[in-house]
Amino acid sequence: FPAQVLAPKFSVCLLFFFPHVLSLCLGYHLFCAQSTPLLKSLYFPEILKLNEDPRVHGVCLHLPPASLTSRVLNTIKPEKDVDGISDLNMGRLVRGDMSKGFVPPTASAVMELLERHGEVQGRGGKTNDKVSQAQTPKPVDQLAEEIGLLPEELEAYGRTKAKVRLSMLDRLHAQPDGKYVLVAGITPTPLGEGKSTVTIGLVQALSAHLKLNSFACLRQPSQGPTFGVKGGAAGGGYAQVIPMEEFNLHLTGDIHAITAANNLVAAAIDARMLHEATQSDKALYNRLVPSVNGVRRFSPIQIARLRRLGIDKTDPGSLMPEEVSAFVRLDLDPSKVTWQRVVDTNDRFLRKITVGQASTEKGQMRETGFDIAVASEIMAILALADSLSDMKNRLARMVVGTSRSGQPVTAEDLGVSGALAVLMKDAIKPTLMQTLEGTPVFVHAGPFANIAHGNSSVLADKLALKLVGRNGFVVTEAGFGADIGMEKFFNIKCRASGLRPNVVVLVATVRALKMHGGGPNVSAGAPLPREYIDENLDLVAGGCRSNLRKQIQIAHLFGVPVVVALNVFKTDTQAEIDLVCQIAKECGASDAVPCHHWAQGGRGSLELAQAVNEATSRPNNFQFLYNLEIPIVEKIRTIAQKVYGADDIELSPEAKAKIDYYNQQGFGTLPICMAKTHLSLSHMPEKKGAPTGFILPIRDVRASIGAGFIYPLVGTMSTMPGLPTRPCFYDIDLDPVTEEITGLF
Amino acid sequence: FPAQVLAPKFSVCLLFFFPHVLSLCLGYHLFCAQSTPLLKSLYFPEILKLNEDPRVHGVCLHLPPASLTSRVLNTIKPEKDVDGISDLNMGRLVRGDMSKGFVPPTASAVMELLERHGEVQGRGGKTNDKVSQAQTPKPVDQLAEEIGLLPEELEAYGRTKAKVRLSMLDRLHAQPDGKYVLVAGITPTPLGEGKSTVTIGLVQALSAHLKLNSFACLRQPSQGPTFGVKGGAAGGGYAQVIPMEEFNLHLTGDIHAITAANNLVAAAIDARMLHEATQSDKALYNRLVPSVNGVRRFSPIQIARLRRLGIDKTDPGSLMPEEVSAFVRLDLDPSKVTWQRVVDTNDRFLRKITVGQASTEKGQMRETGFDIAVASEIMAILALADSLSDMKNRLARMVVGTSRSGQPVTAEDLGVSGALAVLMKDAIKPTLMQTLEGTPVFVHAGPFANIAHGNSSVLADKLALKLVGRNGFVVTEAGFGADIGMEKFFNIKCRASGLRPNVVVLVATVRALKMHGGGPNVSAGAPLPREYIDENLDLVAGGCRSNLRKQIQIAHLFGVPVVVALNVFKTDTQAEIDLVCQIAKECGASDAVPCHHWAQGGRGSLELAQAVNEATSRPNNFQFLYNLEIPIVEKIRTIAQKVYGADDIELSPEAKAKIDYYNQQGFGTLPICMAKTHLSLSHMPEKKGAPTGFILPIRDVRASIGAGFIYPLVGTMSTMPGLPTRPCFYDIDLDPVTEEITGLF
Repeated sequence: FPAQVLAPKFSVCLLFFFPHVLSLCLGYHLFCAQSTPLLKSLYFPEILKLNEDPRVHGVCLHLPPASLTSRVLNTIKPEKDVDGISDLNMGRLVRGDMSKGFVPPTASAVMELLERHGEVQGRGGKTNDKVSQAQTPKPVDQLAEEIGLLPEELEAYGRTKAKVRLSMLDRLHAQPDGKYVLVAGITPTPLGEGKSTVTIGLVQALSAHLKLNSFACLRQPSQGPTFGVKGGAAGGGYAQVIPMEEFNLHLTGDIHAITAANNLVAAAIDARMLHEATQSDKALYNRLVPSVNGVRRFSPIQIARLRRLGIDKTDPGSLMPEEVSAFVRLDLDPSKVTWQRVVDTNDRFLRKITVGQASTEKGQMRETGFDIAVASEIMAILALADSLSDMKNRLARMVVGTSRSGQPVTAEDLGVSGALAVLMKDAIKPTLMQTLEGTPVFVHAGPFANIAHGNSSVLADKLALKLVGRNGFVVTEAGFGADIGMEKFFNIKCRASGLRPNVVVLVATVRALKMHGGGPNVSAGAPLPREYIDENLDLVAGGCRSNLRKQIQIAHLFGVPVVVALNVFKTDTQAEIDLVCQIAKECGASDAVPCHHWAQGGRGSLELAQAVNEATSRPNNFQFLYNLEIPIVEKIRTIAQKVYGADDIELSPEAKAKIDYYNQQGFGTLPICMAKTHLSLSHMPEKKGAPTGFILPIRDVRASIGAGFIYPLVGTMSTMPGLPTRPCFYDIDLDPVTEEITGLF
Repeated sequence: FPAQVLAPKFSVCLLFFFPHVLSLCLGYHLFCAQSTPLLKSLYFPEILKLNEDPRVHGVCLHLPPASLTSRVLNTIKPEKDVDGISDLNMGRLVRGDMSKGFVPPTASAVMELLERHGEVQGRGGKTNDKVSQAQTPKPVDQLAEEIGLLPEELEAYGRTKAKVRLSMLDRLHAQPDGKYVLVAGITPTPLGEGKSTVTIGLVQALSAHLKLNSFACLRQPSQGPTFGVKGGAAGGGYAQVIPMEEFNLHLTGDIHAITAANNLVAAAIDARMLHEATQSDKALYNRLVPSVNGVRRFSPIQIARLRRLGIDKTDPGSLMPEEVSAFVRLDLDPSKVTWQRVVDTNDRFLRKITVGQASTEKGQMRETGFDIAVASEIMAILALADSLSDMKNRLARMVVGTSRSGQPVTAEDLGVSGALAVLMKDAIKPTLMQTLEGTPVFVHAGPFANIAHGNSSVLADKLALKLVGRNGFVVTEAGFGADIGMEKFFNIKCRASGLRPNVVVLVATVRALKMHGGGPNVSAGAPLPREYIDENLDLVAGGCRSNLRKQIQIAHLFGVPVVVALNVFKTDTQAEIDLVCQIAKECGASDAVPCHHWAQGGRGSLELAQAVNEATSRPNNFQFLYNLEIPIVEKIRTIAQKVYGADDIELSPEAKAKIDYYNQQGFGTLPICMAKTHLSLSHMPEKKGAPTGFILPIRDVRASIGAGFIYPLVGTMSTMPGLPTRPCFYDIDLDPVTEEITGLF
């Protein structure tokens, strides 16, 4: 036996002499065990013996996180586990009720920050990065320990972010879900009303102050706007995700993976059209099903296409000429290719382009365009998939265009769907980060909120609900106003996930309420009119009785209680705050409270946390707004009338034709994802409050078959932002010595 | 004092009672210390006292890897450090000669694989992924420990790859560099001759068999071709980088970061041209230098532009109208924008496109194109930068086009260079992976080998040379044949890095030699003619006496000894192998040996490893081929005559004009990066062997000012590959249950 193997016996000796010693130092022995299977087989029995030895008062393990497998952690009996030590060793995180593993962060970190830096005075770019950089995030493996993740479930990406493996869902499948809270908003001004900061403030309050396990689930921001008009997104003031620069830049590469997958489909489409245009059936067939060492074989993806064509053969030699032709020719109609390329850059010159102008492309040029990456259908799929195989199936089903004979052509027809799944295999794992106060955050997926459903991922919510346990809280956020983000959350995301929310938090600001009450126009870049700075109770009341009331009613359509969170600004007066809370409750909100998370962190959202906790005990009679089996037109009409307040809808001839086509193709039972402006409940951005008496025009109807929804276009949606004359990037810089980033937020 | 603080004193007591105890168990005390500054300040003095206490025989630390800072590790005196324990704690890796920390892997892993799977029989896609997946890579933190990296120098990206922080260079600045070996090749067939597998086989042999510290530095493969014709790249058979799927897909996101940075520049260019075309000087100035809370200020990047314009003012109000105009108008000539967009996808339809066709772009459409991402100048910069600040300066200097008055316009003029540095801040850190036998590999940068210099990064080589230590080996690889990759390695990369190679390994295959000796055409996809399967000594000899001899001579131009590595195929006969080795030595090679790494791993490259080790003792009189101060035309002529064997060069009028322009702009002293076919020493791909009597035509001359070279175009270079009728992706799939990838290699 080498010396190390003898060590545990020797350590036991130590305990005999010093029975008051609480910990048994097996340290270096276990380090060795990690790398040597022989030792591993030896130390497990040793620990089991120590468990039973009455003279041993306690055992502690010193192991690198990577070797703390559940087997190791479950080896020590709870009563032998030394308090304080096991905290650091995570020993207690995997025994018994998993949710016990969740260690809510303490409020001290942000309190210290507040002491050092004081309350955040203004709301401007500059303050955020200072607050963010002043706080050092805890190492992500420590965060993972605190929330009960096993080391083998974590894939660190640097020190402050990590992907979480989906195997965790299997391990905790018997664990009851926590409470599920949706943060939505009233119809916003163009400046945004702070749903993300409310989300972060709320989990900080629940966690550090009420000591309830909690988790925020956020969307990954697009990198394009970070360098354009908007700047970074991650909450603000003392309610942020840190480090903000990681959150706002490449993160763990999910959007890059989506870009790669999306553009591989695009390249496959154009290359295939070129090859079909320039080759005979026979030449195409010889290339698509080549003879390798004298043997011709269909690949599995080709067999799948044959099945869809109704050809039940597996021998490439046995196809009739017309079968060969059907097999080799997707026969895409160039004018009916709906698939666009994407970049994660605000590049307006790519909105409409002509491709294929080089002589090598033999005149096959056509008009197309690029969207911003987060507008890709693959992003919507990532957000809605509930497993790797579900994602793979959705990717295969994506319709990229229509053949000349009117048949939908899918990614699987192109032979590319396996490659897409490979490109997306890591993107499907949610990214773990933390708030300024150390509360865990999942950042995962960020689909557009108009042409897609605008919600973070189903998988992040599911993982978080297991991690927080029965009494914990998962707070997730829906894009835009409740008429859009929340409606889609319920009708699309909840259908896909099977999850049911307990409470809706509806975010309002005095600024937006005044706008809805008749205040002057608010626009980005322009100075705010006086009405928004001085007290004006009439405007506030007007906004509450129109837009806020309507948005509360929308949540009630789904049978879910509403807590109104008033995101307080420095200019808001107490009378204005009180008025909002009073009217909100009159309008049916379970509660309505002011929030001061921007200036005070979680402490500023304590009231909201209490109100949300309270509201979860209210009756909740969740129901969908419409049945999937009713006709597409009826589904659109239901949303228009019940949610937007329209009298009716009006379909363009194009929209009608598309609906007929989708019905005929069997897509009629998909849910609806309205592509509508977020600046009004109606389709007219300038109509504030709660407009009535309008007819909602449906200009066109499109479909994301892989993501699984039909999206009617109400007006024109830009899917590619531009850069202003002086983009944010003018102020963004990196100090090459300190590596500090400035100007990003 | 809390209990923990008392612990060290108590532990010292233990030692008094048990003087035979070799380790002092400070374990849980130091765990606590990690998180509490108070305790931290207490335990350092404790350890220092223990260092001096003659009764203490040894000290061991039990700390999670994250807290093993160099301060902690340097605290214990070497003589108090307990053997065996410190091995695991990495304590000894930072004391004395750093290279001692390097633990060469043992050969057992691949031996076991060989036993289980046997030698790789064929060279086809299918075998590689089976071999790759049969071997479990060691955890990257373990690999990092073995090679002497400190935990704080590592940023893990999942379990099997990690970025290494550049701070390591500062820590080891006093450490002598290891031996520096370049792997280059003879002029290849279109099938490639296996430089990467030779590189990997060589480090495996040096490391596991000769027990010499060694490191391979490889280029990151482009993701585009992985899904196109080529399939994945990472060596093959038993000489691979694992896991191959990580190596071939997103890796740690460097190419994605380059894509994002490159396309931000492109978006900035077009948006700026639009804004300049549609706004007055005054309006532009008001937007570029806006009044924020009544104050107008130039950003630092704007001040830099003012300086370049010769305007020494800092108050925005003090500029004369003509100064305002000069400041706000880059006045880019749309027909002289040289910056292209990029995607990491083989998308041939993007080779030539028209952008700006949407009505929002107001008719400012223009023709441009996309390159594959690795062709971006930013990739060349990443490969040549030797620090973060060097990279930032190079990014700022990039010339994106020419103004109407003929002035170069840079990324800094666009105001975007700080943002580019921010986007690239992680990409600059090399990625650590491993070979099948556990030898460390840096994967970093992969610039094109024709329009750029085709070598992996300067920084990866520098880091690796420090890590292996004085007697260790770093093997780095140059793209294409020695006439291209090696020439650029010497004249461009070595100039940038200041490093000098000890040996060149010149890779040849019997197949390529037969082609150069007069064998029939070899092309991808077509069956190999009989000459390449049957023994044919005449063809072999012809190839050796033409191309091989010439490539050896080229290396000797630089004063570096050459070892010829014959990458042996199953069809090669012993007589052919012997003939190659014999002639190679006659032609001046220090040695020439056959390699069997494909079939046998490192064991198959033992002879090569010995020959390389031997050659490092040969005299080495490194010299550059040309002096930077001679005129551009002379530099081009020198390369054409001395390296390619041309009689002379012939410049097109366009090339002449460009050279005049570059001279006038002060770019005349940059090195030359020839963009020439790799399939011949000449500009004519069909001319094999060692062509003579030709005039090299220079069609055009371009410049990568940020990367720092002038690149003359010899013929037409495609910078965007296409997809074939049946791309690789047809066979690529992901099993959603096992997560296993098939068909990638």
